[in-house]
Amino acid sequence: RRHHPVTVMWDLPFLPFCALLGILGFVCVAFVSAWCQYWRGGFALDGSTRTFNWHPVLMVTGMVVLYGAAALVYRLPPAWTGPKLPWKLLHGALALAVFILAVLGLAAVFRFHNEHGTPNMYSLHSWLGLATVLLFSCQWLAGFSAFLLPWAPAWLRALYKPLHVFFGSTILMLSMASCLSGINEKLFFSLKNGTTEYKLLPPEAVFANTLGLLILLFGVLVLGALARPSWKRPDADSPDTRQVPALLWGP
Amino acid sequence: RRHHPVTVMWDLPFLPFCALLGILGFVCVAFVSAWCQYWRGGFALDGSTRTFNWHPVLMVTGMVVLYGAAALVYRLPPAWTGPKLPWKLLHGALALAVFILAVLGLAAVFRFHNEHGTPNMYSLHSWLGLATVLLFSCQWLAGFSAFLLPWAPAWLRALYKPLHVFFGSTILMLSMASCLSGINEKLFFSLKNGTTEYKLLPPEAVFANTLGLLILLFGVLVLGALARPSWKRPDADSPDTRQVPALLWGP
Repeated sequence: RRHHPVTVMWDLPFLPFCALLGILGFVCVAFVSAWCQYWRGGFALDGSTRTFNWHPVLMVTGMVVLYGAAALVYRLPPAWTGPKLPWKLLHGALALAVFILAVLGLAAVFRFHNEHGTPNMYSLHSWLGLATVLLFSCQWLAGFSAFLLPWAPAWLRALYKPLHVFFGSTILMLSMASCLSGINEKLFFSLKNGTTEYKLLPPEAVFANTLGLLILLFGVLVLGALARPSWKRPDADSPDTRQVPALLWGP
Repeated sequence: RRHHPVTVMWDLPFLPFCALLGILGFVCVAFVSAWCQYWRGGFALDGSTRTFNWHPVLMVTGMVVLYGAAALVYRLPPAWTGPKLPWKLLHGALALAVFILAVLGLAAVFRFHNEHGTPNMYSLHSWLGLATVLLFSCQWLAGFSAFLLPWAPAWLRALYKPLHVFFGSTILMLSMASCLSGINEKLFFSLKNGTTEYKLLPPEAVFANTLGLLILLFGVLVLGALARPSWKRPDADSPDTRQVPALLWGP
């Protein structure tokens, strides 16, 4: 691969970057869990706000952190050589785990709303969040059908691949915007008539605002890593040749 | 330029896409203006909520729509050939206009808060939004110093260029997230104790939620256009050679 001699200076090694990203992802999950546990009363399955608390934790863990991990699978140097199938399976499996967490996360908030007679799907956050999860579900299904099932013709795979890559980054972006609007909204709800208003910036507000910025930083680093040409799998632009042999799926 | 034969199918012509984007950008500005005019009482400079109303209009017009136009300058086919300087000046001038609108937009909300004794900078929206404007200001200053002033050495320009491009997309993304969290927050404020609560989804809520989705669509289309390899200026990876001659900037 050719690089402009000067831009080589930006060529960080991928694995230390990945380790940093892993730590940051862990910190995001720890922050959202700590927020819900310490300030919002913890977790339960009784339909109360303690059921709602699963919503931010599952969404940040799934649609941001695990999603980031799934997106970066093909950037791992071991994925560059040898058969692509194991890495496809890992990518698809991680994305499936994201989907399950996202569905559980949606179930938590719908359960909470229904239990309290609160309407669903009125805020911009809810529209944005549901659109994100729906787009992600379509992306998973289309990716599975085109890249893992054996009957998609090579031209269809080649046609869909740039779309899959583009929507991969776009969905992460929507996911980040959903998290940020959700945290903002939740703080206005929770710190409205409580001990300290949001506008007086109590410790909870500083903590949860910081969580928002950490999610942003994590997402921007993942998007940056995805966009770096030198971290892309060398055959990224060639059509797929090795797929699951049809007989594995056959009758 | 070589293309994979199949992916040529995605090769839309840039100019009709631009026209679509222009219409969408105009619709975003019209929507945010109509929201503030029709439901939020219009515009004034008296420190009331009618002063606040300048905030969403200026931010969407500047940091989203005009920003998108500035970002796409080098994708215009006429910019691909001939001297680069006029396009640099246009890019820098549009970005300067964005900066001015953003500063006025911030002034509107600070003025409104101070007039009402409301604290500034407590919500995640405000943290996110201010971080976006600060990053954008740094980006403008660094771009001006490196690419328009004549004394930056070629190696520094080559080193900074990929960063400038990356932050260009990142700042637009942050801008979209700021707008979405801001619209969400404003609807909770405005439709709290009014005639109809936000959760009952009155026409204003549907309208402003739709505005949020339109901003999202506009931003995603700009980001997609920026990422398309076939729309990039052919010499995008070469270091700049033609700059403003030093003598234009005086002794």
